[in-house]
Formats: sequence, C-alpha cells, structure tokens
Amino acid sequence: MTTQPTKADKFTFGLWTVGWQARDPFGAATRAALDPVEIAHKLAELGAYGLTFHDDDLIPFGSDDATRDGHIARFRKALDETGLVVPMATTNLFEQPVFKDGGFTNNDRDIRRYALRKVMRNIDLAAELGAETYVMWGGREGSEYDGVKDVRAALDRYREGVDTLAQYVIDRGYGIRFALEPKPNEPRGDILLPTVGHALAFIESLDHSEMVGLNPEVGHEQMAGLNFVHGIAQALWHGKLFHIDLNGQRGIKYDQDLVFGHGDLINAFFLVDLLEFGGVDGARAYDGPRHFDYKPSRTENFDGVWASAAANMRTYLLLKERAAAYRADPEVAEALAAARVAGTRESTLAEGETYQDLLNDRSSFEDFDIDAAGARGSHFVRLNQLGIEHLLGAR
Amino acid sequence: MTTQPTKADKFTFGLWTVGWQARDPFGAATRAALDPVEIAHKLAELGAYGLTFHDDDLIPFGSDDATRDGHIARFRKALDETGLVVPMATTNLFEQPVFKDGGFTNNDRDIRRYALRKVMRNIDLAAELGAETYVMWGGREGSEYDGVKDVRAALDRYREGVDTLAQYVIDRGYGIRFALEPKPNEPRGDILLPTVGHALAFIESLDHSEMVGLNPEVGHEQMAGLNFVHGIAQALWHGKLFHIDLNGQRGIKYDQDLVFGHGDLINAFFLVDLLEFGGVDGARAYDGPRHFDYKPSRTENFDGVWASAAANMRTYLLLKERAAAYRADPEVAEALAAARVAGTRESTLAEGETYQDLLNDRSSFEDFDIDAAGARGSHFVRLNQLGIEHLLGAR
Amino acid sequence: MTTQPTKADKFTFGLWTVGWQARDPFGAATRAALDPVEIAHKLAELGAYGLTFHDDDLIPFGSDDATRDGHIARFRKALDETGLVVPMATTNLFEQPVFKDGGFTNNDRDIRRYALRKVMRNIDLAAELGAETYVMWGGREGSEYDGVKDVRAALDRYREGVDTLAQYVIDRGYGIRFALEPKPNEPRGDILLPTVGHALAFIESLDHSEMVGLNPEVGHEQMAGLNFVHGIAQALWHGKLFHIDLNGQRGIKYDQDLVFGHGDLINAFFLVDLLEFGGVDGARAYDGPRHFDYKPSRTENFDGVWASAAANMRTYLLLKERAAAYRADPEVAEALAAARVAGTRESTLAEGETYQDLLNDRSSFEDFDIDAAGARGSHFVRLNQLGIEHLLGAR
Amino acid sequence: MTTQPTKADKFTFGLWTVGWQARDPFGAATRAALDPVEIAHKLAELGAYGLTFHDDDLIPFGSDDATRDGHIARFRKALDETGLVVPMATTNLFEQPVFKDGGFTNNDRDIRRYALRKVMRNIDLAAELGAETYVMWGGREGSEYDGVKDVRAALDRYREGVDTLAQYVIDRGYGIRFALEPKPNEPRGDILLPTVGHALAFIESLDHSEMVGLNPEVGHEQMAGLNFVHGIAQALWHGKLFHIDLNGQRGIKYDQDLVFGHGDLINAFFLVDLLEFGGVDGARAYDGPRHFDYKPSRTENFDGVWASAAANMRTYLLLKERAAAYRADPEVAEALAAARVAGTRESTLAEGETYQDLLNDRSSFEDFDIDAAGARGSHFVRLNQLGIEHLLGAR
Repeated sequence: MTTQPTKADKFTFGLWTVGWQARDPFGAATRAALDPVEIAHKLAELGAYGLTFHDDDLIPFGSDDATRDGHIARFRKALDETGLVVPMATTNLFEQPVFKDGGFTNNDRDIRRYALRKVMRNIDLAAELGAETYVMWGGREGSEYDGVKDVRAALDRYREGVDTLAQYVIDRGYGIRFALEPKPNEPRGDILLPTVGHALAFIESLDHSEMVGLNPEVGHEQMAGLNFVHGIAQALWHGKLFHIDLNGQRGIKYDQDLVFGHGDLINAFFLVDLLEFGGVDGARAYDGPRHFDYKPSRTENFDGVWASAAANMRTYLLLKERAAAYRADPEVAEALAAARVAGTRESTLAEGETYQDLLNDRSSFEDFDIDAAGARGSHFVRLNQLGIEHLLGAR
Repeated sequence: MTTQPTKADKFTFGLWTVGWQARDPFGAATRAALDPVEIAHKLAELGAYGLTFHDDDLIPFGSDDATRDGHIARFRKALDETGLVVPMATTNLFEQPVFKDGGFTNNDRDIRRYALRKVMRNIDLAAELGAETYVMWGGREGSEYDGVKDVRAALDRYREGVDTLAQYVIDRGYGIRFALEPKPNEPRGDILLPTVGHALAFIESLDHSEMVGLNPEVGHEQMAGLNFVHGIAQALWHGKLFHIDLNGQRGIKYDQDLVFGHGDLINAFFLVDLLEFGGVDGARAYDGPRHFDYKPSRTENFDGVWASAAANMRTYLLLKERAAAYRADPEVAEALAAARVAGTRESTLAEGETYQDLLNDRSSFEDFDIDAAGARGSHFVRLNQLGIEHLLGAR
Repeated sequence: MTTQPTKADKFTFGLWTVGWQARDPFGAATRAALDPVEIAHKLAELGAYGLTFHDDDLIPFGSDDATRDGHIARFRKALDETGLVVPMATTNLFEQPVFKDGGFTNNDRDIRRYALRKVMRNIDLAAELGAETYVMWGGREGSEYDGVKDVRAALDRYREGVDTLAQYVIDRGYGIRFALEPKPNEPRGDILLPTVGHALAFIESLDHSEMVGLNPEVGHEQMAGLNFVHGIAQALWHGKLFHIDLNGQRGIKYDQDLVFGHGDLINAFFLVDLLEFGGVDGARAYDGPRHFDYKPSRTENFDGVWASAAANMRTYLLLKERAAAYRADPEVAEALAAARVAGTRESTLAEGETYQDLLNDRSSFEDFDIDAAGARGSHFVRLNQLGIEHLLGAR
Repeated sequence: MTTQPTKADKFTFGLWTVGWQARDPFGAATRAALDPVEIAHKLAELGAYGLTFHDDDLIPFGSDDATRDGHIARFRKALDETGLVVPMATTNLFEQPVFKDGGFTNNDRDIRRYALRKVMRNIDLAAELGAETYVMWGGREGSEYDGVKDVRAALDRYREGVDTLAQYVIDRGYGIRFALEPKPNEPRGDILLPTVGHALAFIESLDHSEMVGLNPEVGHEQMAGLNFVHGIAQALWHGKLFHIDLNGQRGIKYDQDLVFGHGDLINAFFLVDLLEFGGVDGARAYDGPRHFDYKPSRTENFDGVWASAAANMRTYLLLKERAAAYRADPEVAEALAAARVAGTRESTLAEGETYQDLLNDRSSFEDFDIDAAGARGSHFVRLNQLGIEHLLGAR
C-alpha cells in the first residue's frame, strides 16, 4: 500500500473547497478567487480523481448565456487535459438573498419555483458532464424560530420538489441519482432533515425513493454530537450511502470543515475501516467517490490551500493502511472473538424457529442463568485499545 | 380554560418517575421506595389520567410467580379505586447486569433471546391491563467504542426483535402498537437509533411498520441539540407520533429529566401549541396521552415529588392557555400573514402543472425579479416576539 | 412599571447590530449598509440611551484622515441631535485579513504592534466621545490546531497588550476602564480566554487589574453550555461586571446573536432579576448600560431590523416587570424560606469561631444527625415553578 | 523509550477508578467491590507509582473508629508491600444524601459545618499517608434552577471553607497544597466553578491563594467543549497546575471517564507533548503525578478492569514517544519556523520601548504594509498535518 493518491482511490474535491476565499462571519476574504481551470490542474497533479461543483462555483450567478457557455467550455477543456471526472454536482440555493428563507421550502411560492428551475438547469449541465450523483444540501431550509415555519407543509414542499426533479431526471434519461445532505444547523437556527436519520426517513416518503439516497458529511453529524460511523453504518444498512463528504470537526460548535482526520481521529479511523473493508469478505462497503468537502483554514495562503488538499488524501490513505493492519492482526482477531463482535450476525431465532418455539425453550428464560450471563466480560476496552494502537502505528 | 388538570387532559406518569429514588452516578438514593398503590392514589388526586410502567417497576426483578401475581392484583385494585388507566407499558432491558451490552442487539445471542422473552411476558401483562402502546427504549443498545459493535448486524437483530414481537402481538390479538423511543447517548456512549429521524427510518424497514411508531422525549432530542418541535412535526408528518414523553432539559448535557417547561420554555410553548391546536382546523394534532417522563430532583423529599408532579401538569395547561390566546390574537394572524407562514401549504406546481409547464413559465425564471424577491422581508422576528409576549402572558 | 423604554433604562446598541448587512458563512448580504446617523435617529426614537461602535463601524477601514474626521463630525452631530451617549467603544481586530491569526497574540510581532496602534487610535476617539468602557473581544486570538500556538507565550503577549493600553489610558487621563469579552470559539476553533472564568483569572495577572473587568455576552457563555446567570454572579462577586452584552442563543451551536429573550427565556428572566434587583436591598446589582449585541436575522428587511431592536428592549422590560412581581409575592418569599436560599448568607463559622472551636463542637460531627439532615427536602422544584409561573404572567 | 510503565512515569490511580462497581443512572452494579489491598498489589504489578482515595473509598461511610483504624492499617501494609505512594487524597462530599445540595455551599449551615469536619478528618489521614496534594471536587456545589442558589453568597461560603482548611493545614504543619477540580455539570445541572478559568479566578480571592491550585480533568473541560490543552496551558501560565486527572471523553455529553486517549486523541497527543516536553528546554512542564481518573466501562469484568488500567499507561507512553519524535523531526522544526510559532515569545514592545515610542514608530502603523501582512500564509495546516502523521507513527 502507498500513501501517494491515485485515481483508483477516487478522491474528489468541490471547486468551492480549495476555492474558498475564506470569508467568515467575522472576516473578509483572505484569498483571491481561484480559476476552476487552475484548480483542476493542481488537484490532478496532487492525485485527485475528480471535481464537483455548485452551479455558481463554475458560472458566476447572473452570467448571461454566452458567458456561461464560455465557463463551461474552459472547464471541459481542463477536464480533458487532466483526465479528471465530475462524478457529482449540486445547486447553490443558499448564497443569494433570494434564498434567505430557503429554496424548496421557502414560504414564498415564486421562490420555490425559481429554485426548481435553477436546479433543473444545473442538472442538465451535470448530466452533460457525466455526473452520476446530484447532491441536495438544503442549508437554508429551516428556521430560527419555532412559529415561523409550518414544518409539515414545508416537508410536503420538500417532497414535491424532490419528486418533481426525480421525474425530470427519469424523463430526460439522465443516469443521475440524488443524494440528500443533512445538517442540523448553520446557517439556519434549525435545518429541516437535520441528521442522517431524518433524511433517511424522508426519502421513504418519496415517489422515487429508489433513486434518492444520502450524502452524509462527517462534521454535520458531529455538530449534533452523533457518531458518524454509526450514521454511515445505518445509511449502508438502508442501502442509501450514495455519496460521502469527508472532513474534520472538533466537537459541537460551528461548522469547521477541517481537513479529514484533523477532528475526531479515532472515528475517522473506524470510518475508513468501514468504507474500505466493511463490505462482504473485506471488500469496500462503499465504492463511490471519497469526496472532501472541507475548507482550507482562513489563516492559509495558497501554499496552505494545496498542502491541505494533499493532507486530506494522505491522511485517508494512512488510515486505510492502519485499518488493513488492524484487520490482519491475529491478536485483533482474537480480541474480536473475545468481544463476540460477530455474535450479532447470527439471528436471534434459529432458522425456522418461531416465537412459540422460543416460548417453549425453557433455556431461554425459565432456566436461563441470568447471573452468569451478567457476569461475562465484554472485553470492549481491550479491543478498542488494540484499535488505537494500530491507529498510532504502534503494532 | 382552567389549569386544574382533569382526565380529559390525558396526563399520565410512569411509576418510575415519582417513584425514582434519586440514585445518580455520584450519589446514593435520597428517597425511600414508593408503593405503586400509593403512587396511583396520589396522582389520581392530583388530576392524572393514567399510569405507565416497566415490568420491573411493578414487580421487582426476580420475583416468583406468586409474588408477581400479588403485585399485579394490588395494582389492579388501585387502578379500580382511582379510575386511572394504563395506556402504555414498557420493558426494563437496561437495569440488570445481563443487559449491560443491550437486549435486542446484545453481542450474546442467549441474552437477546432472554430479552425477547422478558418483553413478551410483559406485553401479556400490558394487554391485560388495557395498554394500547408498548414503548421500546433501547437505552443499552449501542456502544462506547467504534469497533466493538457491528452496527449493521445489530440493526438486523433490532429489526428481528421488533418483527418477532409485532407478530406475537398480532397473533395474540392484542390491541397494541409499538413506540420506539430514541436517545442519542447515556447510558451508552452512542445509542443506536439516536434520534427521531433514525428511528423513523428504521421503522420503514420493518415487516409490520404500520404498527410501529415513535415515543419521542423532549430531553432526548435536545441532548443532540435538535429542535423538538421540528422533530415532532416530522414524526406527525410520517403518521408516527404514537406516544410522547414530556420533560425538561437545559441544553446538551446529561439526561436531566426536569419538569416539563423547566428547560427550553419557548420550545415547550410551541410544542403544546402544535399538539393541542396543530391539527385540522385547530384540533389536536396528537390525541394520545400527555406522558410525563421526568425525575423529581434528587434534592427533593416527597413534598417535592408531588409538587413536581403537579408542576408538570400545571405548566402544560398554562402553556395551552397561552397558545390558545396566541392563536386567537388578530395581531398574530396579521403577523402570520405578513410572514407568509401559510405559503408552504400551497403546492409549488399548480394542480396539473408539470415540470415542463414550469420550464415554459418564463415568469418562474427568465423573467423572475430575483432582486425584488430577495429584498422581501420575512418578518419572522416580529412574529416570534408576539409568540414570546403571549408566552409571558403580556398580551 | 411600563414597557416603553426610556433613557433611564440605559439601553444601548452597537452600530454593528442593526447595521449588520446579514452576510453569513453561506450567504451574501441581504441588506444595504445603514448610515450611523440614521441608526442614531431611529434608535433614539425607539427609546435607546446610547450607541457603541467598533472603529471600523464608524469609519470605513482605510479611510484617510479627512474622511475620518468627516465621519466623526457627522456622528457627533447625530449624538447631539438625539441626546444619545456613547458609553462604550471597541476595536475591530478581526475583520481584515491582517488579523487572521489575531491582534495582540498574533504569531507576527509587526501585526501585534499594528494592532496596538489601531486600538490606541480608537481609544482616543472613545475618550473624546465620552466612553467610560472600552471593550476588548479577542475573537481572532486563538487557533484551530493544538500545535500552532504557544498558548503561554500568547497569554504573555495578551497581558503585555492590555498592560500597555492601560498605561496609555492612565497617562492620557482618560476616564476609561477596559472590559474583556470572552467567547469559546468562532471564528477561531478555540479562542483564548474562552469563558467568563478564564478572563477573570487573566485579569488578576495584569499590572492594572483594577481597571480591567468583563463584558460577558449571553450567547458566548451559552455556546459553552454554561449558565449565564451563574457567570454573571461570579463576575459580580469579583467586582468585575463592567459591561454586559445581552442577546439570545438557542444552545450549543454557532453564534446566533438573537434578540434578548429569544433563546433561554428562563435564564434571561433570572438574569434580569439579578441585574435589576440583585443588589443590596433589592437595588440594581449592575448599574451600567444594558447593551444589546445581537443581529437582526438575515431573513429580515429594515422593518424587521427595527422591530427586532424594539423587541430587545420590550422583552427586557417585560422580564423586569415579572421579576419585580416575583420578588413581591409573599408565596415566593415563603418558598424562598422553605428552600433556605438565604442560608448561604450566614457564615459557616460563627463570628470569631475558629476551626478549633468547630473541631470541639460535637454537634457539628460526632453528634450530627446525618440521616435527618439528608432527609430534609430542598423544595427547589416548587420555588422554580413559582418563578416560571411569574415568568408566564400567571400569578 | 519504552512503553512499559515504571515508577519514574509517576502514574497514579484513584481507588474509585478500578474499584468502580459500575452502577450508572440506569443500571445496577455489574462488578463486585474490590479490596483496596488487592488494588494496590495489582496496580503495582502493572507499573503504577501511587494510589489516591476519597475517605469513603478506603473506609466505608459510617465506620466506627476501630473499623476505620483497621482499614487504614491494612492499606498502609499494602503500600509498604508494594512501594506505592499516596501523593493525593480527597473527600467524598457527594455520595451521601446529606450532601445532595452540596458541602461547602449547602444552603444548610449545619451541613456545611459537617462537611468541613469530614474534610479535616481526612486531611489528617492524607498527611499521615504522605499526600502532598488534597483535591477538592465540588460536584454537588451548584443547582438545577437559577433561583434556588444565591451564587454570590455560595461563593463566599466556598471561600470561607477553603480559607478555613488552608489555615488548618498551615497550623498543623502539613506539607499539603489544595487542588480544585472544576466540572461544568453532572451531577448538578450547573456546578459552581465550572471550568479551569472560573476556578483560577476564585483562587485569587483566597486568603492563602499560594497554596491552592488546580486539578483539571480532561473530560470535565471537554464537557464544556473547551480545549483541554489550552486550559492546561493557562493553568501552567498562572502557576496553578498542582495535579491533573487524565481520562477520555467523546464530546459534549455525560461524563464518560474513558481510558486516557480513548476520546479526543489529537488533543491527548498535544497534552502529553505539553506536559512532558513543554517546560524550559524541553523539560517537563508539570512534574507531579500523572493521575488517571477514569472508569472501566460497565460492560467489563475484572479482566477488562485491569486491561483498561494498563491501557491508560500504555497510551500515555505511546503518545510520549510520538511527541518526542515530533519534537526531534527537522521537518517539524522547519514547519514550526514557517508557522512562526515562536513569534509570540518575543515581546511586542522592544525592551525599554514605551507606547510613546510605538506611537512614534511610523513603520508600526502609518507605513505598515497591511496588505502584505494580511497575505502572509500561517502554514498552520501543514504543521498540524505533521503532528498527526507523527501521532499515527507515520514519520
């Protein structure tokens, strides 16, 4: 294994990540705008596989058609030159004042209609560029105050929006699936579909739920204090991990968008372990792009921008190396057995056993030695310590 | 309206609430055990409608059958004497050492089998006592460490457990539905199905999803920093608000189980507004028990226990009064209109309109006055201030 | 009592509050810039007592001297016309790229020197305008990463900065005291002096600690999950509540800067009670400006800006009314006595009693009835419920 | 360097850590009580240096004098046999019902007096056993409700308590210093002196502040979302790091007391770096015991208890190894220089320079090239990445 990224690693970046000019709530931009063409060349050199974009990242909001075509043509050329692909695209429904109360769930119907049009237009471009996933982050769909949004009606409109767009994609014959990106808050006080779970539940209500999945982001779940590995496992369990946003977050606070691994490192380790080796017989559990949705810190100049881009990929590959060694270690295998981690893979009722059989099984209740069962050690701390020692490269 | 509770208010309490002996992680019990019979009489006097229980609340763990029958008989008599009902019951799968790694998702199969038996036994009793809802709080289903639980396999077992019990209830002809109670953490580091959203998604995977809904708890969602009113609205939207646990929590910290309203008071106000008046034409949006799942603070003696029980009900009724006044205030109506809160109730596409029609509607995009739309004020702060003034009884 | 603000209420606003153009991390400005002169006239009409400002609020960064003088002259005129005072001013050491790693604690010495110069210049102006308090919010003093800042050396520089400026103020004969404003994070991952406590401790290390106190902000402490009323009480206890920033925050998340009371309403109630009636014999415990440091939500147009400004003041006055009624209620007095709240006002040792006397007092230990003492009820829930009922205007 | 602990590493454990019987808010004990003598022998074998205790850990609450003496004698013998020392002791003022509203700040004066007596008695024992540090964790000093505690009066009583005990220690000639242990909440809703900062400030108010410092705990600060490395650095800066409690915490939630390093691993790495190499010329910045205040997870049997004890020490030593390598790496040295981390060690004013000289230095302001300074990169991300790669053992 190597920590030099290659296209096989499927590392992708949003134009808005390295391209972030580092404006924050208390500060002006500290970096100049980057040309998407330059981004493409630079990230290709660093070993990236692809690029992603919001419509307004590539084509400044309000551009006329000729300007738009020019931007697209230049970008296509850069893709050709670099061999980068565009596996995902998305819509900016949050930057402009018109979206201050959201897009699909805005209290104003004409803004909702405008939002749908803006999405459809960019879906066309995404399809042209070969994107297979179209992300929807509803960052402005929400409220600061509990009485100002009819949440149930807003969810109706959210569903209507996604259903309409799904039909559009089907009719156009685009090979695109949607991926919803949950976030609990910021920029709204409370955002609708705040976690992986809420979005999974929402998806089940859709007309074409089969073509809608998730794009979970490390930091977004951690902003709610939730375990990202658990969230990804549940998303996989529902067959809904369509895309993933990797970054770093240091606890419950504002959205930090740090480099992947520069937050909860232990959780990042077990995440990589799950993604890379959590499938059948140790195969990948998720085969799509490893997408970094991060922001180079506002303190950095362009040297720091590119160093941070490389750091994302290198950290991922280092964690992959350690996860491979963890899985290969006989002592870990023994500790996993002692902790009976595989125990949940066996069904609780035997094949063909009914609850009536269970009721008849006196060993399950009447004769069950509760004290002995309660006295068994789980041996979880030892197993976790082995994981951490592998993470530290100490075994 | 009055703030003296009556049975029509449907206020219920768990035996374990007023009966909590006030042991906490750093302290021994400060109160003696309460007899369920005394609890019944006392809560009936205070105006409660019903009682709920874990099996082990009513019948000490490990009781033999005769003792068990005695406890049940005494309790039935108290119910008869007081007119209290038992609309909900649940199982204690968390207190005994045997459940230290969970019940349905324990790494040990024999413990999972034992857990199912324990639940079935108490479902029988619940049905006998007329309960319509059976709550499942999987407080021990989870982990402290990311590598010690196969989350996907654990979810398989969770599903198997609920499916088996659902079949049991159907076959027995019990008029019972299940309600899952999410919680993000405590007593486990991370609990499976940590939020309303995760549980809603899980339910969709069940064989008998129609008979499984939610029992959300105020404090549990707030422990993840989530908006409880939004969560309840989404649960209602999915038709899954089967039961509710009311209490108070002051932010992201350990589970406080304070009196309802003694936490985020504004959120509590809009919650009562939603439950009582958020249905069609201002009807109740949820008609089941208003269940208080709280703990009288460890500092209190029995005077404080009963004072706190009464406080839950009185606060709820005061908030209901204020919500009614809020809804009746013409200035609020005007402010709701100015904030266009009803705007989301209109579909984004007109009846019969297709996305193609939308694409053809130049007013929706090409001719849309983005700047004018962005300049509109949402008037949310004024509306929220009116809500707060009603909450303060100042209008 | 009335809820129409007057100058006696000492309500002040920062120019940057109503003047916020509503740029956030994900969105462009939604409102035009406001002229400080207009702000002055409008807030005076609403009943405000004074204005506060960062240097760059009043005089755009980089203005030449003539332009600067013009801005100041216009502002003075507005103050004269409106009768508004300027009790506080502060420096913007966070907006410009040069301050991206902080001002006083920047890793670059020349930037630290520039920062001191910028502060001194604005202190001159503050003194000219009659300010008595000069606030220092070190929002950029901190780091995202644990190895990039020598925290102890940075604290040395922080101290050097404040010491130097204190000497400057003394020598110039300005009647100014400094007030440090703590914040745990945002815009830096971790900010130095993150809470009221850390800043209080730092102050003790200063050459002129007597002229340095605090400017605590509601939301900043609540972003760390801390109780603001407790923090203010400790600041008062140390004699260090020099100024206060009132606003609203809904839990641990990004800095919301909501209207005062639109967050944790119960805490806001007890805060107003403390400030207004917590002094000797029910006098004000803090007599300085009631300063609103909030942001009108990004969804609002100018109608919402002014409505939100008025809401801050009205909510404060409503809470003051309720606190007065709470204090005057005989039942509250009785409940306070039952809860023995005044008990801590008596010293633990009697006057003149030594620890040796205590050791000799067998009633204190050998003969102390521990069980009886442990069985006493604290009656805290009842007292809190009375507070909430007063807050709700229900008594 | 080795990861086999020796006495020189100064690893200590509380009797209550490995001895925890694993009762939690929702569960009964899962482990039997451990004899302190067995604890001593076992931890000595594992390489520990010393033990610490609460009075009630060693001598069950309510023991008569003869029983007490017997417990002490057996413990002394175990110390002799194992060579373990007792560098710290503390008082249990939280477990018994009598302390439900606190010890030093209880609303009841007689309970405050009893608390002082209980502390004095155990200080005598601590001194006899050679302890140099006496810890005060005021876990019950606080409130759930904002109106039930006069915080300023409570702080008076807190001060009175510590002052009285300091005088006692001085007069008795004990070589003991006090160390306050802050915690934000749990078991009280809000605890007084909630953070390192608040306790530091409080100490400055004491009669004998020189003999009172801090015992910060990793998880306690992290429960408030605060950076523990920053907190320790500030404590060192004030000369107040008298003792330290090492453990692991996974974010803002209930107090987890995990094994050291099993929480925020990056922060743990930089903590060890600071403690071990952050002094003058790379010496230890803190030379006292490395005290583990953790709880073996409730899932564990005694195998897991001892495995977790060993894991604390091994993780610490692994982090120490990596910190040493980090400091020795020339590329890190170069990156530290590029990030100008040492820049804050130079004073902002030159030696002898006055603010007047600074005002006269046109290069500091009038001629300062703000744009050039703002354009400099801080190179923080690269430096942090180097730290993480060392942490991963990848360099």
